[in-house]
Amino acid sequence: MLAPKTNEAIDAWLKAHLESLAGKLSPCDSCPLANTERDVNLPGTEAVVTVLKRLFGLLFPGCHGDGPVHHTSCYEQTRETIRELAQTLTDQVRRAFEYACRRETCVQCGDCLEKAIESVTALLDGLPEIRDVLHEDIQAAYEGDPAAQSTMEVVMSYPAIIAITVHRIAHALYRRGVPLIPRIMSEYAHSRTGIDIHPGAVIGPGFFIDHGTGVVIGETCRIGRRVKLYQGVTLGALSFAKEADGSLVKGIKRHPDVGDNVVIYAGATILGGDTVIGHDSVIGGNVWLIESVPPGSRVYNQTPRPMIRTKKGSNHATGK
Amino acid sequence: MLAPKTNEAIDAWLKAHLESLAGKLSPCDSCPLANTERDVNLPGTEAVVTVLKRLFGLLFPGCHGDGPVHHTSCYEQTRETIRELAQTLTDQVRRAFEYACRRETCVQCGDCLEKAIESVTALLDGLPEIRDVLHEDIQAAYEGDPAAQSTMEVVMSYPAIIAITVHRIAHALYRRGVPLIPRIMSEYAHSRTGIDIHPGAVIGPGFFIDHGTGVVIGETCRIGRRVKLYQGVTLGALSFAKEADGSLVKGIKRHPDVGDNVVIYAGATILGGDTVIGHDSVIGGNVWLIESVPPGSRVYNQTPRPMIRTKKGSNHATGK
Amino acid sequence: MLAPKTNEAIDAWLKAHLESLAGKLSPCDSCPLANTERDVNLPGTEAVVTVLKRLFGLLFPGCHGDGPVHHTSCYEQTRETIRELAQTLTDQVRRAFEYACRRETCVQCGDCLEKAIESVTALLDGLPEIRDVLHEDIQAAYEGDPAAQSTMEVVMSYPAIIAITVHRIAHALYRRGVPLIPRIMSEYAHSRTGIDIHPGAVIGPGFFIDHGTGVVIGETCRIGRRVKLYQGVTLGALSFAKEADGSLVKGIKRHPDVGDNVVIYAGATILGGDTVIGHDSVIGGNVWLIESVPPGSRVYNQTPRPMIRTKKGSNHATGK
Repeated sequence: MLAPKTNEAIDAWLKAHLESLAGKLSPCDSCPLANTERDVNLPGTEAVVTVLKRLFGLLFPGCHGDGPVHHTSCYEQTRETIRELAQTLTDQVRRAFEYACRRETCVQCGDCLEKAIESVTALLDGLPEIRDVLHEDIQAAYEGDPAAQSTMEVVMSYPAIIAITVHRIAHALYRRGVPLIPRIMSEYAHSRTGIDIHPGAVIGPGFFIDHGTGVVIGETCRIGRRVKLYQGVTLGALSFAKEADGSLVKGIKRHPDVGDNVVIYAGATILGGDTVIGHDSVIGGNVWLIESVPPGSRVYNQTPRPMIRTKKGSNHATGK
Repeated sequence: MLAPKTNEAIDAWLKAHLESLAGKLSPCDSCPLANTERDVNLPGTEAVVTVLKRLFGLLFPGCHGDGPVHHTSCYEQTRETIRELAQTLTDQVRRAFEYACRRETCVQCGDCLEKAIESVTALLDGLPEIRDVLHEDIQAAYEGDPAAQSTMEVVMSYPAIIAITVHRIAHALYRRGVPLIPRIMSEYAHSRTGIDIHPGAVIGPGFFIDHGTGVVIGETCRIGRRVKLYQGVTLGALSFAKEADGSLVKGIKRHPDVGDNVVIYAGATILGGDTVIGHDSVIGGNVWLIESVPPGSRVYNQTPRPMIRTKKGSNHATGK
Repeated sequence: MLAPKTNEAIDAWLKAHLESLAGKLSPCDSCPLANTERDVNLPGTEAVVTVLKRLFGLLFPGCHGDGPVHHTSCYEQTRETIRELAQTLTDQVRRAFEYACRRETCVQCGDCLEKAIESVTALLDGLPEIRDVLHEDIQAAYEGDPAAQSTMEVVMSYPAIIAITVHRIAHALYRRGVPLIPRIMSEYAHSRTGIDIHPGAVIGPGFFIDHGTGVVIGETCRIGRRVKLYQGVTLGALSFAKEADGSLVKGIKRHPDVGDNVVIYAGATILGGDTVIGHDSVIGGNVWLIESVPPGSRVYNQTPRPMIRTKKGSNHATGK
């Protein structure tokens, strides 16, 4: 499409710069930002997301693609999808284990391939159970939102279902120590939904997040059954412990526990690894909470009401 | 790519588990999580999004794809796109009506195909008018943001335009009672922009949302002309009325009304079906408002100023 | 797929409406919502995003696609990608310059093609330096988050890296005055990550945003080295100056400056072009700040503690 003049000017620049620039940008042997076959050898993020979408196809057949599955061929298709996923995901997970071993120069952490097969087959064997739990999540969404007209509407249009489905898959791999891949999966969900759940979080059945944008759930959270969150809720860390050398301590309990049947309204922030929200509590919108509360608590802000200044010149706090 | 050893181990697992697992995951006749041809028979979410993108192509020719439309062929292309959309969207909408009828075992709600044709042709006939209203929205964005350099920049790079365009399309279908499809469309916009507008909301022309991430606009909101919101604004429900059996009452007015020329700054939360924000009011950032305010009001927080502790040891509230 | 009856009904509607509707929706000569070859002639947003993804491939080889790059072919691939990018991006940038010239009926702003070549080759020549700065950003993320297991995990799964990479590319074009394309790029990052950074912002190395959803960084912000933000932070404008005719003044300093080593916790709002956050300050969660603070400040909210009402009937403010 470029005019001849462009081609000339660009060609001149290419002639002068291309070799040198390609040399500088070409991945070196231990480039920290490059995924190279001999060195890092990880699956790319798109390849991981492709696997994740196929897992979605197993859990919600016909819902997220072009259209309904056909009764006559669906058993066979399901079987072939499982077969292919077993191969592809095992290959991806093995590479992730091998990458971690090389980084940490492991000697006896176990055979990477065996660990990969164990992790992937455990995930696949666990899919029917994951689907049962998701069924409870979907029911909770349907019952918890007056705007929901059917459970199929929930499956097809609720971001919480995307987020919790990815989480339940990613958590199954995380629990078996799979590096990196669970985080690529959870970040895919974050990108699609604005809901950021670390794969390490333990979340009971019947979980629902309404709207969801801005929700953050940290790695060491434990959340009970039938918990309901709204948009913008943070279950986060209070501050980070440091090693003697100033680096952050990794792997300690940093995030709160939330009991069964708790409701947390929009924008609430709950922080700290020692913080426990007792079951059947209600945490109000925008509350900032850094201590435990007993079961059945109601927590709400006592900030002054907003001021209203009307055209007629009266100034008063709101009455509610 | 897998080494022979892998193939063997995976093959052994597949031999032992594949049939049984495929049986468990294969969709049954009334699976609540599966979209099957004989039973649910809905379009998949991707198919709905594909239609939505083609509608975008009609409203903003050449803006969101590879490049500009050509004068000589654009009339013909427009005509063929309309023809194809009429067919495809009618098919999708008919299935959605039929699904709702089966679920609710309707007897005389009307012919699904007729309703589908009526809904889709009304949407298509209304596209020129929708485009006129979008023109006002774009103008409001251009005039309301000092960073905007041209209206084409607004069309091509403002998330508010994606969100309000999808909303105006989805609302046209929602108004005619189309199940599910409007919600799949609005969730697509939410996923892309972080702006969650329920298709039921009624929104006047000249609407602008700056930045937009985290905005929630509920199903029964009514928003006037030339309203401007910032990121993180919630127009939501105060609490949910329940039926005698404990289930939520669906279909009642739960969300606020916002008058003409109102500005609502970032993070403000306005709740309740009885709450009315009078025209020409300004609602300050982070305000939590659950009652009506008269026209021309200024509402702002009277929370204490933040404390500043400086290195020299002085402690003082901020001066503004 | 449609039954014959549908086809008839739709065909009848098409016969009656298609020509007229296509006429109304077909782009006219100076349609404000259409990108036409003779008139606006801009690249479409998808074309710009395609270029952006190829730039990602140069900066993080093998990380975001299907899998690792191969040592034997990667130099050649890098070279060919650069060559193609030089051509395609120059063409896109030239069109953007030409569009701006036509809009503003420029007479002597310079040759659009020359300006395009200058902008694009400067960006490409600067890629190795951008990669060095990104390396510092990645290191900051790894050191700043206890959940991070490796820098490759940061590259592959941290939204902050997507956002800051796009920003550093878009800012390089913005600095050379390229219209529109930098904003299409930044909005792509916003859509993927929920982080909205205007291409005009100046951001030092070692920049990290944890979680990130809802972050807004305005056009005229200047951010120092090793700054860390959390989700929901706004660095925004306080109010907009207006021209005598009531339109907004464009191009003035409207957003704050943030010094080196500053940490800003989740949900904080800092506004105004005169606001300067001194280096080594910490701004607490949800703080609303519209004035400058000296270096080393700690700023936190003194709002009343939330009230806890327990089942046993006791009412008390939280103890922390």
